[in-house]
Amino acid sequence: MKRVVESHLRVRYAETDAQGVVYYANYLVWFEVARVNYLRALGFDFRSLEQQQITVVIAEANCRYLAPARFDDEIAVRAWVEEVRRTSLVFAYAVYNRTSGQRLAEGSTALVFVTLGAQPRPIEIPTALRQALLADPAEGECEEPVVVCKS
Amino acid sequence: MKRVVESHLRVRYAETDAQGVVYYANYLVWFEVARVNYLRALGFDFRSLEQQQITVVIAEANCRYLAPARFDDEIAVRAWVEEVRRTSLVFAYAVYNRTSGQRLAEGSTALVFVTLGAQPRPIEIPTALRQALLADPAEGECEEPVVVCKS
Amino acid sequence: MKRVVESHLRVRYAETDAQGVVYYANYLVWFEVARVNYLRALGFDFRSLEQQQITVVIAEANCRYLAPARFDDEIAVRAWVEEVRRTSLVFAYAVYNRTSGQRLAEGSTALVFVTLGAQPRPIEIPTALRQALLADPAEGECEEPVVVCKS
Amino acid sequence: MKRVVESHLRVRYAETDAQGVVYYANYLVWFEVARVNYLRALGFDFRSLEQQQITVVIAEANCRYLAPARFDDEIAVRAWVEEVRRTSLVFAYAVYNRTSGQRLAEGSTALVFVTLGAQPRPIEIPTALRQALLADPAEGECEEPVVVCKS
Repeated sequence: MKRVVESHLRVRYAETDAQGVVYYANYLVWFEVARVNYLRALGFDFRSLEQQQITVVIAEANCRYLAPARFDDEIAVRAWVEEVRRTSLVFAYAVYNRTSGQRLAEGSTALVFVTLGAQPRPIEIPTALRQALLADPAEGECEEPVVVCKS
Repeated sequence: MKRVVESHLRVRYAETDAQGVVYYANYLVWFEVARVNYLRALGFDFRSLEQQQITVVIAEANCRYLAPARFDDEIAVRAWVEEVRRTSLVFAYAVYNRTSGQRLAEGSTALVFVTLGAQPRPIEIPTALRQALLADPAEGECEEPVVVCKS
Repeated sequence: MKRVVESHLRVRYAETDAQGVVYYANYLVWFEVARVNYLRALGFDFRSLEQQQITVVIAEANCRYLAPARFDDEIAVRAWVEEVRRTSLVFAYAVYNRTSGQRLAEGSTALVFVTLGAQPRPIEIPTALRQALLADPAEGECEEPVVVCKS
Repeated sequence: MKRVVESHLRVRYAETDAQGVVYYANYLVWFEVARVNYLRALGFDFRSLEQQQITVVIAEANCRYLAPARFDDEIAVRAWVEEVRRTSLVFAYAVYNRTSGQRLAEGSTALVFVTLGAQPRPIEIPTALRQALLADPAEGECEEPVVVCKS
């Protein structure tokens, strides 16, 4: 059973554009919020990763836009891990309007773990993180979504 | 006794810059989040304002930066009304790191109420909103901050 | 022979993040700059489109990140039309560092032409625009790239 | 005679908001573009500054909004140095619509020179930069604006 972490946010005026809807690039910002919350829900944060001289870079991002979001809408972004490879991860996302329940967008990002520094090289996902990513959600932990994050 | 509304948010990676701290323009985005929450706490939202063919434009913004905010920091933005004029309002803001309590920034924005449409003209603040803005917080409502908004 | 329009820009500090590189969502902003310049090079702009009660929405966006861009880097974004359908268009993009010539990213966006208004419906691409999109570049017009746009 | 450096840019769709105008925080982004161009026109860039273990932080920002800017508008941002102190600088800015000549906004930012690193301390403006900032524009250099930067 897959672990899904749901993040809640409210559309900022800054995120809208002259069409009166959320500008398309901002969904990638929301994806970032969602995957940071996902990793935090697992007990990991990017700061501790960087103390191990490891960081994460985005290799690919995709988004399909199904319906617009507007200023002040309450949004849910669900994130889950689609694939765990040796040095990379694929997160998938679905964005909803929390009031109507309508699905607004869906997408994915591929992340590569790399060494910190001027010449980053791919590096294996740290073992503790890999195990946490692959572990089934705990009994009772997972009526989807597992965790709701205010952010 | 003044009404203070506090908004909570977490620094997004998108909000940081190459110095590793929150980019200076993003404090104005946080101010917007804070004043929208302030007005919502009073029972007003921009959508209903626009149904009255009224909107709000920013006439001035100021920010003093005292200490940096970093990725993943938990932030509080306190907002209050500094001045209520005939067609305009001044909001003041103070930004804090919620963990350390450190004050990170302070600022203000002047807002002007204008008619919707191609040739906006200043218009008086709607009476109900003016009264709500000027009313003292209810008994017991106001141990500062009045309202904490997750956003 | 395909028409390629190249847009030049310089990385803003606002576009970087705490890793010291351009934040991944900002490539979609650059894609927007590039496709607006492409259409302008063809003699079309979004304003005149909206006067015909037509607008364009993004249905899908994809980006592959090959190498980072940094503050102050001079960037070229090449845009071309990959596909012209009845009510939609696919633009493709390639992003380069102008100094090193290194390819930094590549991507695509699918755009749908819709009616302006509260209930947008897909609408055929206006004939004049379709013809311009499908026309071969004029003789001599097209040593790739056709047009260099400062923006 | 003061040196004025003028930067040209075109409003991006990403910079607009649901009111159909440029979101107020984005003027601070334009100010950044303008002061980076100003310093480059003087022969200085932030990268070489950082090689001297010096960086610059924003201490204060102010903006007055006079008239809106809209998508695709061609914008000029004029920047000049208002004040040079021991460890800090004040830049002033004026934003224009290049087509109409209308003044859209004006503002200022105070910058402090600090040491690079975890505990930044104010540090004197490097001598060569201070001299360049204080020097009069060369004969003939300065019919306002001195330099026009595409960015």
